[in-house]
Amino acid sequence: MTGLFATDAAARAFDPLWDEILAVGRDPGTGGYRRFAWADADLTLREWFTGCAAARGMDVEIDRNGNLWAWWLPPGWTGEPENAFVTGSHLDSVPDGGAFDGPLGVVSAFAAVDLVRARGITPRVPVAVTCFVDEEGARFGVACIGSQLSAGALAPERALRLRDGDGVTLAEALRAAGRDPAALGPDPLLAKRIGVFVELHVEQGRALDLVDRPIALASSIWPHGRWEFTFSGEANHAGATRLVDRRDPMLTFATAVHAARGTAEKHRAVATFGKVLVAPNGTNAIPSAVRAWLDARAADEATLTALVAEIETLAGKAAAEGGIGFASEAESRSPIVEFPPEPRAKLSAALAHLGDVPVIPTAAGHDAGVLAERVPTAMLFVRNPTGVSHSPHEFAEAVDCHRGAAALAEVMAAWVR
Amino acid sequence: MTGLFATDAAARAFDPLWDEILAVGRDPGTGGYRRFAWADADLTLREWFTGCAAARGMDVEIDRNGNLWAWWLPPGWTGEPENAFVTGSHLDSVPDGGAFDGPLGVVSAFAAVDLVRARGITPRVPVAVTCFVDEEGARFGVACIGSQLSAGALAPERALRLRDGDGVTLAEALRAAGRDPAALGPDPLLAKRIGVFVELHVEQGRALDLVDRPIALASSIWPHGRWEFTFSGEANHAGATRLVDRRDPMLTFATAVHAARGTAEKHRAVATFGKVLVAPNGTNAIPSAVRAWLDARAADEATLTALVAEIETLAGKAAAEGGIGFASEAESRSPIVEFPPEPRAKLSAALAHLGDVPVIPTAAGHDAGVLAERVPTAMLFVRNPTGVSHSPHEFAEAVDCHRGAAALAEVMAAWVR
Repeated sequence: MTGLFATDAAARAFDPLWDEILAVGRDPGTGGYRRFAWADADLTLREWFTGCAAARGMDVEIDRNGNLWAWWLPPGWTGEPENAFVTGSHLDSVPDGGAFDGPLGVVSAFAAVDLVRARGITPRVPVAVTCFVDEEGARFGVACIGSQLSAGALAPERALRLRDGDGVTLAEALRAAGRDPAALGPDPLLAKRIGVFVELHVEQGRALDLVDRPIALASSIWPHGRWEFTFSGEANHAGATRLVDRRDPMLTFATAVHAARGTAEKHRAVATFGKVLVAPNGTNAIPSAVRAWLDARAADEATLTALVAEIETLAGKAAAEGGIGFASEAESRSPIVEFPPEPRAKLSAALAHLGDVPVIPTAAGHDAGVLAERVPTAMLFVRNPTGVSHSPHEFAEAVDCHRGAAALAEVMAAWVR
Repeated sequence: MTGLFATDAAARAFDPLWDEILAVGRDPGTGGYRRFAWADADLTLREWFTGCAAARGMDVEIDRNGNLWAWWLPPGWTGEPENAFVTGSHLDSVPDGGAFDGPLGVVSAFAAVDLVRARGITPRVPVAVTCFVDEEGARFGVACIGSQLSAGALAPERALRLRDGDGVTLAEALRAAGRDPAALGPDPLLAKRIGVFVELHVEQGRALDLVDRPIALASSIWPHGRWEFTFSGEANHAGATRLVDRRDPMLTFATAVHAARGTAEKHRAVATFGKVLVAPNGTNAIPSAVRAWLDARAADEATLTALVAEIETLAGKAAAEGGIGFASEAESRSPIVEFPPEPRAKLSAALAHLGDVPVIPTAAGHDAGVLAERVPTAMLFVRNPTGVSHSPHEFAEAVDCHRGAAALAEVMAAWVR
């Protein structure tokens, strides 16, 4: 049993698209990407997306939240698209991110359109390739801003007030990019438009490598969230202040780092402090405050709640002992996403020539997870041999990328015929 | 027994000068000062210094390193000043620093000149009020740049390559301020010019408060230094990376923070991590690297060496256990400064009306400590009731500031008559 789309055909569709964006936003020092929402590299990639659509005769629509939709409509289709097969991902990155997280899904989507068309298939329902804006949340601190706004999960007023590291609000960034901040809000067309949203993504873990398979389907996304921990002490001279007179929040933060790790181990979950801001951050000053962001994820809601509560308790206890103020604020929390069995069964059937495709959970958030609240969604993962992600070392073999694009074409062809 | 100078006369000399600079470089949000070498607030204060000198008929000289000298020469003095009574401090601050650290010494110096002149005293030797540039090292990471350059303790080539947080080199900052970077170097006139350098400074500790005395003389400055610790791990996805697959440098840094504190307690010394830079510093990314600066000080050289070596050993051990790379680099190290007994005895005698003036050590670095290698130096401390320094809460009572200015005038008068 073989599929409609051969890996070498997928390579010819995929590789030129992939190569076009390899240099965009790449730091020559680290080899990592710095593609932040509404900043230069992101705007360049949005132009590239529009160019890809134009080259394929696909009309591009920019929705109220800035998400991009490239449409391939059935012959004779008039009026609004409905019940479409929608596929895509995002083009932004974390600071010093990898090449695959996001772009792999967008490039594979355009390649899949090319492959399906090359087989002379005419779709019965509209097809869209999408790019959701600001998935990583690297610039404004909240992830999946574009999909959250469209799904009604993020209030526009809150989004517009978010600030980047330079103090620029999302509203200002939108204006600078020629967008209208007042347009932001839920997409009333979303549910009617999307028959299914399929997001192809590089795996962020080593499950496929361990079972030696190139492609998987997603079962669920772990519940996860971000909590801002603030430890407030007293700035003072690092030389002249006796240890007993200090209220040094760095010590309490250090305790919290170990508490997070230990508690995560206990709950078979993950907890990470990846972002830290110290005030005043002077070599010879005891900090007045340390702000640190806890990223926590667990297999189920109860475990996540217990995990964070225990870390907060341990941090608060250490703070009280050191005369340090402690506050924890939930910056975002995403509930567990169970991808629905129905679209997944269709995808499985379309990929039957690959054998039983593994079905695996992920602890990473995705636009597909956000949209799952409103529309049927599914995800395809492409093997990542090291499991490394959000890093310049993120990697997938070229042949696995081609297999992924071919698989997405199979799924698209099966859905739209 | 009373002195020549009454506190109320000192208040009239001191207060107007003090009030002139209170607003310069003050952050309205925190109330702290951001006066960084060669940047706006610092340039404004240098102009103010020049204005103070002009108002007193004192010629201002800017030496090759940018340090300011305002001269009051004996009548009929011709040629280069020699064997002068020099007093002053610095006008720059740490990030969010206090009002007193530095400016108190400069304002008191001008006030002392006014007080001594008002008594009709004619100096037999030249008098200078000085402002040494970039004492805090807040901008370029190395403290006492101006005095170190003049004393030959810092090579100009190294200084010029130092970069601030925006990547601007000292050479570029000097050019932007209209200075010639090529001029930097040891001051060949230093030893001949300075008969004694007396620096008045707010106390950075609570020793005077504990003994209920307003003024002290310095005995010594603890040896101290800055070490840059680099912890290198592997950037990865904060959600999708299993704990066992992580090489998270934040954990090792946290261990080092506690190791520094514990080791400092053991050695009756101080050790502080006040500055931390995390890469990539993303909420959902395990850091690739954590750089943190250790500030360590101890009562003697051997203890400081042992303190830092033990912290390095503990950090290195934790790094090895976590698969983390660890490097420590000494950014600066200042040897112990024993202020010489001879000028201190003269100062003590001039202040005999205050009773036995306490003689105390300090763990804070000062230009007077740097210059002590080359010329006779002494320091006066003014009581700080909370001991807080390098913070917006740094404080001295107005009456103690006036007592300090009067004491400096006594010392000046006794020295130059």
